Amino acid sequence: MIDYAQLHALSAVINEGGFERAARKLFITQSAVSRRIQQLESQLGEPVLLRQQPPKPTATGTRLLNHLQQVLQLEYGLGINALQFDSDPQKPLIVRLAANSDSIATWLPEALVTANNEINARLQFEIVLQDQTVVLNRMKSGEVMVCIASTAEPVNGGLVSYLGALRYRAVASPAFVAAHDIQSVADLADAPCLVFDEHDKLQHEFLTDIVKATPKRIHLCPSSEGFRQSVVAGLGYGLLPELQIGDGIARGEMVDLAPHYTLDTPLYWHYWQTESPLLASLRAHALNVAKRRLIQPGVS
Amino acid sequence: MIDYAQLHALSAVINEGGFERAARKLFITQSAVSRRIQQLESQLGEPVLLRQQPPKPTATGTRLLNHLQQVLQLEYGLGINALQFDSDPQKPLIVRLAANSDSIATWLPEALVTANNEINARLQFEIVLQDQTVVLNRMKSGEVMVCIASTAEPVNGGLVSYLGALRYRAVASPAFVAAHDIQSVADLADAPCLVFDEHDKLQHEFLTDIVKATPKRIHLCPSSEGFRQSVVAGLGYGLLPELQIGDGIARGEMVDLAPHYTLDTPLYWHYWQTESPLLASLRAHALNVAKRRLIQPGVS
Repeated sequence: MIDYAQLHALSAVINEGGFERAARKLFITQSAVSRRIQQLESQLGEPVLLRQQPPKPTATGTRLLNHLQQVLQLEYGLGINALQFDSDPQKPLIVRLAANSDSIATWLPEALVTANNEINARLQFEIVLQDQTVVLNRMKSGEVMVCIASTAEPVNGGLVSYLGALRYRAVASPAFVAAHDIQSVADLADAPCLVFDEHDKLQHEFLTDIVKATPKRIHLCPSSEGFRQSVVAGLGYGLLPELQIGDGIARGEMVDLAPHYTLDTPLYWHYWQTESPLLASLRAHALNVAKRRLIQPGVS
Repeated sequence: MIDYAQLHALSAVINEGGFERAARKLFITQSAVSRRIQQLESQLGEPVLLRQQPPKPTATGTRLLNHLQQVLQLEYGLGINALQFDSDPQKPLIVRLAANSDSIATWLPEALVTANNEINARLQFEIVLQDQTVVLNRMKSGEVMVCIASTAEPVNGGLVSYLGALRYRAVASPAFVAAHDIQSVADLADAPCLVFDEHDKLQHEFLTDIVKATPKRIHLCPSSEGFRQSVVAGLGYGLLPELQIGDGIARGEMVDLAPHYTLDTPLYWHYWQTESPLLASLRAHALNVAKRRLIQPGVS
């Protein structure tokens, strides 16, 4: 059987980004961490991680981490939280959850607080941010227990629930529209455009759809609220979730540049087949919140 | 004299995180990128970067990148934008700016749009996020032109302007206060606490100051708006900038847990001694915005 102390050492080195920090996290010495990983590698006859800064798991290391997440959930269902090296069933389950930034800035926090205080008391979240198009890599690599992604396809050993879609609209401040003399959407092609990060293609998609052009001048702003504030300040135009626009249009903070145009990003709750009852309750609650806050099929 | 095409290749490899992406950015082949860096290294007799994923500059590489940022600004003052390999003075200056997440979510976007449209048209921002306590490393490593940090000490070759302070208050939702039976601040020690990331010590500082305790249960939420939403949803309590609280207390979304307690984080605008006139105008504008939006000495 696998020595799980070795897998915990591997997991800590990857999640903490180094041997020294892993040792601190596990309350053991750095040489104990190294020894566990070397033993694991000599049993397997191959390396489980690449010794670089930060360390990265090999393909085999990734499979082991993935397996560990699933075992942890199974064990948790038994009332034993192995992640803590502790059999106290009252210890909370640490849920590493990866999501896109716009979800965390809008509907997701509400989805993490269930109506049942006993369930809430047993969950402890470590949220990891990543663009919705690439976030699923965190699940594939076995780093997280739950992942909010725009991909419908489950990962190996995983399952998927559909949440609904985030609806985006193209907006800018009234001062921006005046300063850049935006008479029609065609004028946007030359105006400065806000982009979240290198993975964010929403603005490119919008401009291609609507005027067959790509943005010429781009400001990169990798913060959901910063993006909204930058729209309001007039730094550029961009696509914002309706949930983040709120009453911003009604209050005159921004204008809808293309009122008949919306872009919907579907979102899925990815989880492991070995989902514990606790996480199943959380998922049921999250689906309820999503049903209320996200765009559902057949509703417009 | 230094061959700046070589330094641009180095800069692109570091900023883009790899040789292939650097080549795409510079519109040259990947082997041309490698060749420029090898030539640079053979002239220096030492490596300028570590070949790992992503590549990291050596100490010498860092000094060169740092130097390149300063030269670029000097050149830009002449009306030549070397970063673009282009002498068109109308090309915008790409300003890589590192800041803490709470600044981008609140006062900073307004500070990046001056009253002068000609200046705005010549600036293109690439914002990089990092906690205020470690963000200055981005400046030290020569990755950015401007940095918003809580450190007053300038980096080598740099200067500093004081902006003011972000004022934080400890808040939670009314439902959270009820669910965790918070009768006084002492009860917070056992209640779940929101923490931005591993560098965020505000909650620890608050709890130590007020009840000589450290948070026992922590949810990590590395998003400014997500942090606010998590407070409102009742996931935990935490310290929020007053600028983000807005009218949230008046509207009953949250309560001030310790009305007489505030934590002020000073913020400084770090820039290079070789600051171009364009960036000097931006800084003057940013200082004006900060004077209005941040807490100033002697004002409470």
